Amino acid sequence: MTAAASEFTASGVITLTSDFGLQDPFVGVMKGQILTRFPRAAIIDLTHDVLAHWPVEAGFWLARSFRYFPAGTVHVAVVDPGVGGPRGIAVVEGAGHLFLAPDNGLLAYVVEALTAPVLRQLGEQFIASLGVTRPSATFHGRDIFAPVAAEIAAGRVALDSLGERVTELVPGWLDPPVVGAGQIAGVVVTIDHFGNLITNIDGEQLHAVARAQVRVAGLEIALHRTYSDVRPGDYLALVNSFGVLEIARAEQSAAEGLGLERGAPVTVVHK
Amino acid sequence: MTAAASEFTASGVITLTSDFGLQDPFVGVMKGQILTRFPRAAIIDLTHDVLAHWPVEAGFWLARSFRYFPAGTVHVAVVDPGVGGPRGIAVVEGAGHLFLAPDNGLLAYVVEALTAPVLRQLGEQFIASLGVTRPSATFHGRDIFAPVAAEIAAGRVALDSLGERVTELVPGWLDPPVVGAGQIAGVVVTIDHFGNLITNIDGEQLHAVARAQVRVAGLEIALHRTYSDVRPGDYLALVNSFGVLEIARAEQSAAEGLGLERGAPVTVVHK
Amino acid sequence: MTAAASEFTASGVITLTSDFGLQDPFVGVMKGQILTRFPRAAIIDLTHDVLAHWPVEAGFWLARSFRYFPAGTVHVAVVDPGVGGPRGIAVVEGAGHLFLAPDNGLLAYVVEALTAPVLRQLGEQFIASLGVTRPSATFHGRDIFAPVAAEIAAGRVALDSLGERVTELVPGWLDPPVVGAGQIAGVVVTIDHFGNLITNIDGEQLHAVARAQVRVAGLEIALHRTYSDVRPGDYLALVNSFGVLEIARAEQSAAEGLGLERGAPVTVVHK
Repeated sequence: MTAAASEFTASGVITLTSDFGLQDPFVGVMKGQILTRFPRAAIIDLTHDVLAHWPVEAGFWLARSFRYFPAGTVHVAVVDPGVGGPRGIAVVEGAGHLFLAPDNGLLAYVVEALTAPVLRQLGEQFIASLGVTRPSATFHGRDIFAPVAAEIAAGRVALDSLGERVTELVPGWLDPPVVGAGQIAGVVVTIDHFGNLITNIDGEQLHAVARAQVRVAGLEIALHRTYSDVRPGDYLALVNSFGVLEIARAEQSAAEGLGLERGAPVTVVHK
Repeated sequence: MTAAASEFTASGVITLTSDFGLQDPFVGVMKGQILTRFPRAAIIDLTHDVLAHWPVEAGFWLARSFRYFPAGTVHVAVVDPGVGGPRGIAVVEGAGHLFLAPDNGLLAYVVEALTAPVLRQLGEQFIASLGVTRPSATFHGRDIFAPVAAEIAAGRVALDSLGERVTELVPGWLDPPVVGAGQIAGVVVTIDHFGNLITNIDGEQLHAVARAQVRVAGLEIALHRTYSDVRPGDYLALVNSFGVLEIARAEQSAAEGLGLERGAPVTVVHK
Repeated sequence: MTAAASEFTASGVITLTSDFGLQDPFVGVMKGQILTRFPRAAIIDLTHDVLAHWPVEAGFWLARSFRYFPAGTVHVAVVDPGVGGPRGIAVVEGAGHLFLAPDNGLLAYVVEALTAPVLRQLGEQFIASLGVTRPSATFHGRDIFAPVAAEIAAGRVALDSLGERVTELVPGWLDPPVVGAGQIAGVVVTIDHFGNLITNIDGEQLHAVARAQVRVAGLEIALHRTYSDVRPGDYLALVNSFGVLEIARAEQSAAEGLGLERGAPVTVVHK
């Protein structure tokens, strides 16, 4: 048994991340299935409104959020265009947390964020051992992820029984930022509720560029510490509270103002 | 005392379904009222975004979802255009679950899904016994449903004290599918977050049609097992994870692609 | 120690109100930080969809909602355009409840609703005592409000240690209604999910006008008790379940029908 494997001790907390939205009962019935097996589970929604069918955003937020939860949390993320097909289910363990997701690249940012993570493929045998013998072909969130998460969160599972260790998972869908001579080229990964443009450029990477500023949509935007450092309506760039480069517009939507979407290029240059 | 009546043993779980949305504090204050009476309640949102003023959708989802919750769950559903008027409040008990809703047809699909359900009208006397003497005229979810659900979920209520047994409730608003010679005619009941068109045709009914396929919006669509059985952008029909016929478009919105709304006719025919 | 100060006894319940939306993991990570410190917290979302950057609406709903929660509840409200700047954090205690919010006028309606509230400014020293030494500049909800709320809700804080008592907070942003000779002039504060126009005119104020009716958008609208008192499609005014004057349209959206937004003038006149 490795040191890493012994790090996870279930806290009873489960987070849920998906592209299911809250309009339908999908998330509700997942919680019903969790409570059926583990009545004292503390279930927290991370978000259910990531872009549908695009695992990148779910993985990005999960990688940037999991450390704010108690050690021993089970994180379930389901963005699953290949549900019912041959894709596997990935189990990642690290930093005292455990992650479950379709093996479609979703967990790439999480794996990148962990030191010496333990990677596994969830085994058919383990699933069957829970009495899950005929899962639906289209809703593994309810029929597989929820029961598995409940059993792990309840502390009833020896992690080695979950399935075989593997050395790699399906890779992420997005190239990492390119750090070049005096500039960094990244993209917008997600746009938040306020219209802030959130990039895949880590705040730590900015040290590579002296007197950094941001070039986006033909504008040069200065780096600041917080929104209230500029006047309402002004653009600013900042390293946000999740540690990544963000382009914002004080009290307004940068996404609307600049007409940008996910995937838009963002470059850090020096002044 | 009948066998059915003795089946319900409160688990402490309460589900909430409504057309209140999450933009306003309506759902939050319902939960506040539940916790005020029963601090250890486990409250799960099923959905609060069913079509406003149309009890059909709430009842449809509830009937298809309740079995994924622990036995002993109290399910509260409030879509209530007649609030404050003469409509009664229905209490349905069956399969070890208990359901509370305005008596406006909402629970029709639930009643249909149960074997030998016990139907009651919630009595004024019971409501008064909880100290609820002057409920608002417009928000019974907070003033009546929440306190009643809390008391039942806490295991403090003898179900016979809730009110008189009745033999029927206000009927559902939608005709059942018509199963004819080699075809089944139904309608779209709801459209999910992904744009999948979900019908009122039960998967079991498909056996009535040999080599079934689906006719909708002038197209003939083949039955498949799951989304990943066809290429992204292709239409498919399937029996979904809630056991009903669904028309989908892989990784896209069938509702947008076909320009269809709730109520649109869907016919199962043979090839 | 004053009587007011001794009134608050933590119940373990925390409500959250913000303009963060549920699309991003902001609310989720606040809950993660709460559970990290206080695993048995009962966390209830009041709403996260109040108008962004406008503390008025959050404060209005909180003032009208808090009494539906158990005594001993900690209410956290974060609408915080000045985050990271010089604005303070307000702590208000009254009626057995405790309120935390940026000191930007958000709590004005709450203070108005309380008898002899105790007002404090959260002290830097208290924040540091929790081990919060380098909060982010842009997300105090997660880095300050969540830990402070968790500690208070867990019953581990002597309220006098939170910070200095003050005699006033930053005032509210909206003028109160003007009650004149036979008429009351107010405004629409918020529009709910159903399109009902909710005003800042308290139901109690209506007694100032004999045979009151409502003038809005050029129409004269009669007062009724509930939605079902008029036919679907008809307009009505009523004192809603939160005790304020509301303009509604039975089974439809008054906001759409009248083309009105927040801030629209509403006058109570006599027939």
